[in-house]
Amino acid sequence: MNGHVLAPSSSPSAGLPLLLTLGDAAGIGPELICRAFEQGELHDTVVLGDPSVLRRAGARMTAVIDSPQDRQQVPPGCLPVLAVPGLPAGLAQLPWGRVDARCGAAAAACIEAAVRLVQAGQGRAIVTAPIHKEALAAAGSPYPGHTEMLQALAAAPGQAPPPVRMMLANDELKVVLVTIHLSLRSAIDALSFDSVLQTLRIAHAAAAAWQTARPRIAVAGLNPHAGEGGLFGREEIDFIQPAVQAARAQGIDAHGPFAPDTVFMRARRGEFDLVLAMTHDQGLIPVKYLGVEQGVNVTLGLPFVRTSPDHGTAFDIAGTGQADPASLIAALRMARRLAAADLLPLRD
Amino acid sequence: MNGHVLAPSSSPSAGLPLLLTLGDAAGIGPELICRAFEQGELHDTVVLGDPSVLRRAGARMTAVIDSPQDRQQVPPGCLPVLAVPGLPAGLAQLPWGRVDARCGAAAAACIEAAVRLVQAGQGRAIVTAPIHKEALAAAGSPYPGHTEMLQALAAAPGQAPPPVRMMLANDELKVVLVTIHLSLRSAIDALSFDSVLQTLRIAHAAAAAWQTARPRIAVAGLNPHAGEGGLFGREEIDFIQPAVQAARAQGIDAHGPFAPDTVFMRARRGEFDLVLAMTHDQGLIPVKYLGVEQGVNVTLGLPFVRTSPDHGTAFDIAGTGQADPASLIAALRMARRLAAADLLPLRD
Repeated sequence: MNGHVLAPSSSPSAGLPLLLTLGDAAGIGPELICRAFEQGELHDTVVLGDPSVLRRAGARMTAVIDSPQDRQQVPPGCLPVLAVPGLPAGLAQLPWGRVDARCGAAAAACIEAAVRLVQAGQGRAIVTAPIHKEALAAAGSPYPGHTEMLQALAAAPGQAPPPVRMMLANDELKVVLVTIHLSLRSAIDALSFDSVLQTLRIAHAAAAAWQTARPRIAVAGLNPHAGEGGLFGREEIDFIQPAVQAARAQGIDAHGPFAPDTVFMRARRGEFDLVLAMTHDQGLIPVKYLGVEQGVNVTLGLPFVRTSPDHGTAFDIAGTGQADPASLIAALRMARRLAAADLLPLRD
Repeated sequence: MNGHVLAPSSSPSAGLPLLLTLGDAAGIGPELICRAFEQGELHDTVVLGDPSVLRRAGARMTAVIDSPQDRQQVPPGCLPVLAVPGLPAGLAQLPWGRVDARCGAAAAACIEAAVRLVQAGQGRAIVTAPIHKEALAAAGSPYPGHTEMLQALAAAPGQAPPPVRMMLANDELKVVLVTIHLSLRSAIDALSFDSVLQTLRIAHAAAAAWQTARPRIAVAGLNPHAGEGGLFGREEIDFIQPAVQAARAQGIDAHGPFAPDTVFMRARRGEFDLVLAMTHDQGLIPVKYLGVEQGVNVTLGLPFVRTSPDHGTAFDIAGTGQADPASLIAALRMARRLAAADLLPLRD
């Protein structure tokens, strides 16, 4: 992982707060936010949500503000909450750990507010607490999750939404996924020259902004031993290797395809800056192997920085005080690093 | 990993040596054997091979013996070598790092000799140094690798060879693979109720002999989130879950199928004794993530213990003295533990 690079105070967004969305009010999001605040991790952050929900989750004092700029007037010890207008009433009276359309609607409203604020230049980056897909659907949202909603909200008027990819990262490994929530058979079908090359371009553009001008990207094969020269599958020969070559011709420092069973270990040891994984579990098994509490989910391809913890609403333990804020804290720190480094090109 | 359980001296095989095969004479096997000997790791081991090859690889003194029992007469400081009869002449004059049919023939002869000795009650377990598949083929061997050769040699006269499975293990994780060297598409096709259940039975029988009477086996799903209730694939519903149920009905402590991206992390933390992986890379990515030098390959289902290091002949560095003996040493230690524990049921 690159060092903790803070943008200088002359950077346009350096004084802006991070925007942290509430997540599902019946899940562990609100209490994780309170824990992160207690640990001093929200010193530059505004929570978008319902102050009552945060008080129920353990916040001793909340300071309700009207705009992110008011963050600086909030005294230490008070959790700054930007009360999103139009949230359903009575959220703080709903039971913990239950799917409720009102929680879904509130979660969606907070995300929309965060995107509008960051687009208006009032926030440095967005960090999202976990939402529940069923609650979101019950509220009538057409989006299956954060990624799709953010993608749609990020689209310029009358334009197609930008292509995005999911990156999972911890201190040792960064993985960008070509395919995500598909059966393994369907994921194989979805792989193509275009999908691999597009992922390489997104990963390069995103990584170049915050790490090095030319990140070293390893591409995992699909098959054992990366196909062993066609003996165990031809995807590497037919389109993965050609996509790597095409990316290199575009100035991307792509390598491979490599045998999947050792490429993640090699990246962890420093041979590459990130790994392109063909399928959900090929990439997520190594990222999660040392512990999910370290993992951060980053959406690449958006015109702003967005991170989230790498876990869900954990309805089974919501409200019990057992939830671990480590992944949320890692997501906040990652957002800070990305937002700071994102601006470095502006200074050239 | 279970502790270092040594069989008591009353155990039938406790005084027998480990049998360590030479591997490909032009690869790193011979020098790894010399390094392991220098580090005191061959105190109970006999090497099956060509003394000249071992001397070229760095052995200062070799003691050529005719039978494994003579191990005890070998003075300290001498590497005990059982000179396998009929090996091709001039092996020690062949260049390092080149495919040669004579090396393949010699490697095969050493493996055959090891199996005959262990079957005759003259060896405690077999540890194999790496062979080269092309050299083996050039020598006319019909077997693509160690596993298939050992399986065939282990067959009782007139009987079908026993079903075997590959296990990869390190100090933190043990994984048994349902499928190995197939394209990912073919591996999905090869999965079935029968192949999953048979793997569970082999894993249970093997693990029960050397770890606990009833190992806790986690079964990984095939699809993201183990299919999310059929949303991302139906293999879990159609046959993986039924195979787990059938195994439980036979007294096997099988669990799952679980989401592949977290089941290996859960096993590493101690929730399960081993994990059944559906495909080569699903299982090998986590085992190798922390470093291949720790990994050991164990063939389950054979009537004797066989382990090997988790790497190949490394022709690119053979003869240069750079090769790391850590995985071979781990394989020797694992063979000792397995062979000791394997006999425990005999004492009941």
